[in-house]
Amino acid sequence: MQNYTHHIPVKLCFGEGQIKVLGTEIKKIGTNVLLTYGGGSIKKTGLYDTVMGILKDAGCTVTELSGIDPNPRITSVEEGVKLCRENNIDVILAVGGGSTIDCSKAIAAGVYYDGDLWEMCSSFHGLLKSLPLVDVLTLSATGTEFDPFAVITNMDTNQKCGGMYAYPVVSICDPTYTCTVSAYQTAAGSADIMSHCFEDYIGREIGTEISEGLSETMLKTVMKYCPIAIKEPNNYEARANLMAASNIACAGIASYGKGGSGWPCHAMEHELSAFYDITHGVGLAVLTPRWMRYILAKDVSILPRLARFGRNVMGVTGDDDMKVAVEAIDKLEAYFKSTGIPMTLTELGIGEENFAKMAAQANTGKAMERCDISLTEADVVEIYRACL
Amino acid sequence: MQNYTHHIPVKLCFGEGQIKVLGTEIKKIGTNVLLTYGGGSIKKTGLYDTVMGILKDAGCTVTELSGIDPNPRITSVEEGVKLCRENNIDVILAVGGGSTIDCSKAIAAGVYYDGDLWEMCSSFHGLLKSLPLVDVLTLSATGTEFDPFAVITNMDTNQKCGGMYAYPVVSICDPTYTCTVSAYQTAAGSADIMSHCFEDYIGREIGTEISEGLSETMLKTVMKYCPIAIKEPNNYEARANLMAASNIACAGIASYGKGGSGWPCHAMEHELSAFYDITHGVGLAVLTPRWMRYILAKDVSILPRLARFGRNVMGVTGDDDMKVAVEAIDKLEAYFKSTGIPMTLTELGIGEENFAKMAAQANTGKAMERCDISLTEADVVEIYRACL
Repeated sequence: MQNYTHHIPVKLCFGEGQIKVLGTEIKKIGTNVLLTYGGGSIKKTGLYDTVMGILKDAGCTVTELSGIDPNPRITSVEEGVKLCRENNIDVILAVGGGSTIDCSKAIAAGVYYDGDLWEMCSSFHGLLKSLPLVDVLTLSATGTEFDPFAVITNMDTNQKCGGMYAYPVVSICDPTYTCTVSAYQTAAGSADIMSHCFEDYIGREIGTEISEGLSETMLKTVMKYCPIAIKEPNNYEARANLMAASNIACAGIASYGKGGSGWPCHAMEHELSAFYDITHGVGLAVLTPRWMRYILAKDVSILPRLARFGRNVMGVTGDDDMKVAVEAIDKLEAYFKSTGIPMTLTELGIGEENFAKMAAQANTGKAMERCDISLTEADVVEIYRACL
Repeated sequence: MQNYTHHIPVKLCFGEGQIKVLGTEIKKIGTNVLLTYGGGSIKKTGLYDTVMGILKDAGCTVTELSGIDPNPRITSVEEGVKLCRENNIDVILAVGGGSTIDCSKAIAAGVYYDGDLWEMCSSFHGLLKSLPLVDVLTLSATGTEFDPFAVITNMDTNQKCGGMYAYPVVSICDPTYTCTVSAYQTAAGSADIMSHCFEDYIGREIGTEISEGLSETMLKTVMKYCPIAIKEPNNYEARANLMAASNIACAGIASYGKGGSGWPCHAMEHELSAFYDITHGVGLAVLTPRWMRYILAKDVSILPRLARFGRNVMGVTGDDDMKVAVEAIDKLEAYFKSTGIPMTLTELGIGEENFAKMAAQANTGKAMERCDISLTEADVVEIYRACL
């Protein structure tokens, strides 16, 4: 078991009605609020009015940054930093899903960043000095509510870069806010959660049973509840279990003591989103089973782990590890398909025209080669091709 | 799923050699250190010298409080508070197991407590204003390194009271420090970890899959690695997995979203320790299977949970829930016995002379009656009797 440090200072307030803590928590931090959100769905659901009422009662001055896109843009980060500086913002309140919260993390750090903001977003660094961030989560997917990471996209250069910023101070996680999430986005978000689990779980290292068991639990939980949430959008138990999985899956806890996979599917997916602006979770669902098949064929040392995945997560039985692993990957692909998301790049309108360029970019800093099962750029192209 | 708040600000540094962070972390907090420890085993192992060297290099002034007993006494708390006040202590460094750390938490809060210290320890309260506490863990058991709780004993009044104090600021968890722990204390500590899991897990509420899966994972992990650690005391993987389970099991995470059992075994065990000063984990191991059998006979609504425990944790198969549950409890008792700890009160020299008094005291604040499967004082006496 490798060494690790656990230090997640987020105050995570989980459950229906937890918005009640917002006023008290914000007041502890500041009064000049930058409120960030996306395309306006929070206006339709009434959450915007609720939040504005609370901020008013708390005596806050509110500056707004709306229209934050999925795969949030560096342009929104720049706009937010400008608003913070002009309005002496002392706390950012992000209301939305992963894109709004990620963008807000980059804004929070950007305020103190002395230099080009895209340089900040595209370079490697540790935690950054940041404005305090509070968020109200409306989508179970990225786990940004409980981690210090954010992913920002530059559509001009077709780059999507993940990096470390700061932990939210408070995350308000009310599963009822996800009841209006469409079946498609529910499935995509759930695939994102599962991918976070796989990126920690599908490695060759053994002997870290708590992390392994947590990954297996989260995978089974998501596969149990995602179909229920799709069928019964208001099912609280389903929405709550998905949100709890979202919270934990990306926080690194499931990788404590081990190296994990090296996060290859995220690296490959970021290129799909950067070039074609597709939904992140869908890209991950398309890639994951193909990646598993590819590494199993490339390096049989991953077989014990994929067989364990088959038995402990997918319920595959039998003594033949290879048969179990192959069946498990097939079942996983069939599961993703059953949630209604496209499972080929062709369906997403993506051809092979940029595969070589995307593979090279995914391998920035030798990221693909340094994976637990090392992948060359040619391997990455083959995996993309298997997704057509 | 019930609402919950997750906010554990502890910086937990896990793994061999993590003592290297001690100097830096202490210096961030203060220079006037109260060093607390137990019977001196840290002098035999050399840890005392290592710590003193680090504190010297960090420019700290050190005041010592040694001789903290298992089931730590209010008298040690009083002594520690006096030392802190006399020496202007600004940080407490606890080096030891649950008793040393628990005692140090009560000292840390006691410094600011205006009143009788036993009153502080025996009354209900939330987090208390406290001196910052850093700990170096030497026993995998109580989980105090990652929670705000402490249990203090008053041998004059035969009272053992658990309560909330403060989270450690930094916990240094190096599994190699537990390699010198005896087979008996390894087994007892492991039983304590398992009991924390059971207290969260054995309740009737359903629909919180992450918590349930985490409990099951921790139970299986401890039962896998405790026998290995007993047989091969220097097996790092075994010691590390037990320590990781210790860290998480008591932090409340496995009860997120649900009520749990109401912690009846801890309430009943605290009376055993308060009256007979026995090892906490041993008392828990003796009580747990008898409590399970008793509540199963008393209220069949707990059957689905005990059957799930049988199938998911103890590997019992079959369609008959009752047979599965009964076999699982028998297997659990046999497992505890196999780790070499006494499994009857008679072996511990305890007769029934104080059962009624202990049952009444365990039920302080109607604690036993308010359990998920409610227990009267007469029920508690029957459970004690089943342990003879």
